[in-house]
Amino acid sequence: MHARFYAPAARGGSLVTLPVEEAQHLTRVLRLTVGDRIRVFNGRGQEFDAIVDTTARQAVTVRVGEPHMPAPEPRIAITLVQAVLKGDKMDDVIRDAVMLGVVAVQPVVASRSETSLATLDRGHRRERWERIAISSTKQCGRAVVPRIADVVPFAHVPAAIAALALPGPALMLVEPSASADALALTDLDVPPPVEATLLVGPEGGWATHEISAAQSTCRFVSIGARTLRADAMAVVALSAVFAMWKEF
Amino acid sequence: MHARFYAPAARGGSLVTLPVEEAQHLTRVLRLTVGDRIRVFNGRGQEFDAIVDTTARQAVTVRVGEPHMPAPEPRIAITLVQAVLKGDKMDDVIRDAVMLGVVAVQPVVASRSETSLATLDRGHRRERWERIAISSTKQCGRAVVPRIADVVPFAHVPAAIAALALPGPALMLVEPSASADALALTDLDVPPPVEATLLVGPEGGWATHEISAAQSTCRFVSIGARTLRADAMAVVALSAVFAMWKEF
Repeated sequence: MHARFYAPAARGGSLVTLPVEEAQHLTRVLRLTVGDRIRVFNGRGQEFDAIVDTTARQAVTVRVGEPHMPAPEPRIAITLVQAVLKGDKMDDVIRDAVMLGVVAVQPVVASRSETSLATLDRGHRRERWERIAISSTKQCGRAVVPRIADVVPFAHVPAAIAALALPGPALMLVEPSASADALALTDLDVPPPVEATLLVGPEGGWATHEISAAQSTCRFVSIGARTLRADAMAVVALSAVFAMWKEF
Repeated sequence: MHARFYAPAARGGSLVTLPVEEAQHLTRVLRLTVGDRIRVFNGRGQEFDAIVDTTARQAVTVRVGEPHMPAPEPRIAITLVQAVLKGDKMDDVIRDAVMLGVVAVQPVVASRSETSLATLDRGHRRERWERIAISSTKQCGRAVVPRIADVVPFAHVPAAIAALALPGPALMLVEPSASADALALTDLDVPPPVEATLLVGPEGGWATHEISAAQSTCRFVSIGARTLRADAMAVVALSAVFAMWKEF
């Protein structure tokens, strides 16, 4: 399989300049050169055959050729609302959520997230997560780069769901003990929707007031009877709902 | 919730000595002391309230009390046959497979595994994986420590499945392009079984001759249309089949 690169400006028949990071990946890591065959995708679902036209360290142009069929997108558009996790764990969640096929990730600072919006801003975390989303898109064969939204406090999310800024049904993942209303996935009698939102909490779980705030907009779901690690929850939940909704 | 410790000899009403590693965890990490309330599980499904009776650095005895209900085991006994992965990635797979609820992990050296039985032996990898299984059992609330089998060459596995040493149905996870017979999970019309085996390949995927060797004993399954990272495959596949078989 030809190496794939992200070229947001790619159109059939055009000559495009790759973004700097993509150019570096092409020349320094893969050591490709003029005349080599590659593929480019525009991040919005289109992929093309292409040929390297000129190379310099940070400026690579490619001649875009015929359209190529990328890995198909899931039929269900799932948005992952993920409470920010400790250290680098959020990086892995974003990488894997993109690989599994989410359309967007909405990072939130929950009451038990051990970080603040200011710290995340200073660390340019959102830019980092966008780079990870592009990298994972390249590896998994998708031609759609999922949107990584600006981090918001969780307090805004239930209202956003109610106002339809986040698609429903909205499933909030909780420990079995956290809510008397928590259903097993099996008990959730919902036909495969067109779009859905999964809400995954931080290491300490959702706070009681967050669960209350979500009561009118979300359904509470527990996955299995064991205690799952917070940083594995998104992958487990996405895999489980894709299987339940016959996407897998 | 009281801290949980692995005490293979625990029986109601007994005074048991904890294994050295458990004793160190109790005294050095959690800094518990005589009279503190804990829980112990025997690794075979039983859990008890207990009280710390005596402590020394490496010798802790506990007084075992009333039985306590651990996290329930899945109704489907799933064995994970996992090709050994690079570096520490196998550690994470074993930790997460235990958390999700497998009954056993059978590590195999596949044709594209970048390691050998001799290297794994010298590195005492199986002992390490057993410690990881115990640690994950403690964290996820199970009272059953899944068995980590001796590593074997993959070549032995299809015969072992045929001889019923590994429970069926056996599902071999493959890339959509790897086998013309590969089904989507959705197309796999199997009612929830009592036991099952999932086979997950190494970074480079199963070799063609391995897929041929498995032809008569395994069904080939692809999970979604994107390319999944090898070290995420076990978690994704376990989550998906548990959801499909209504265990979640």
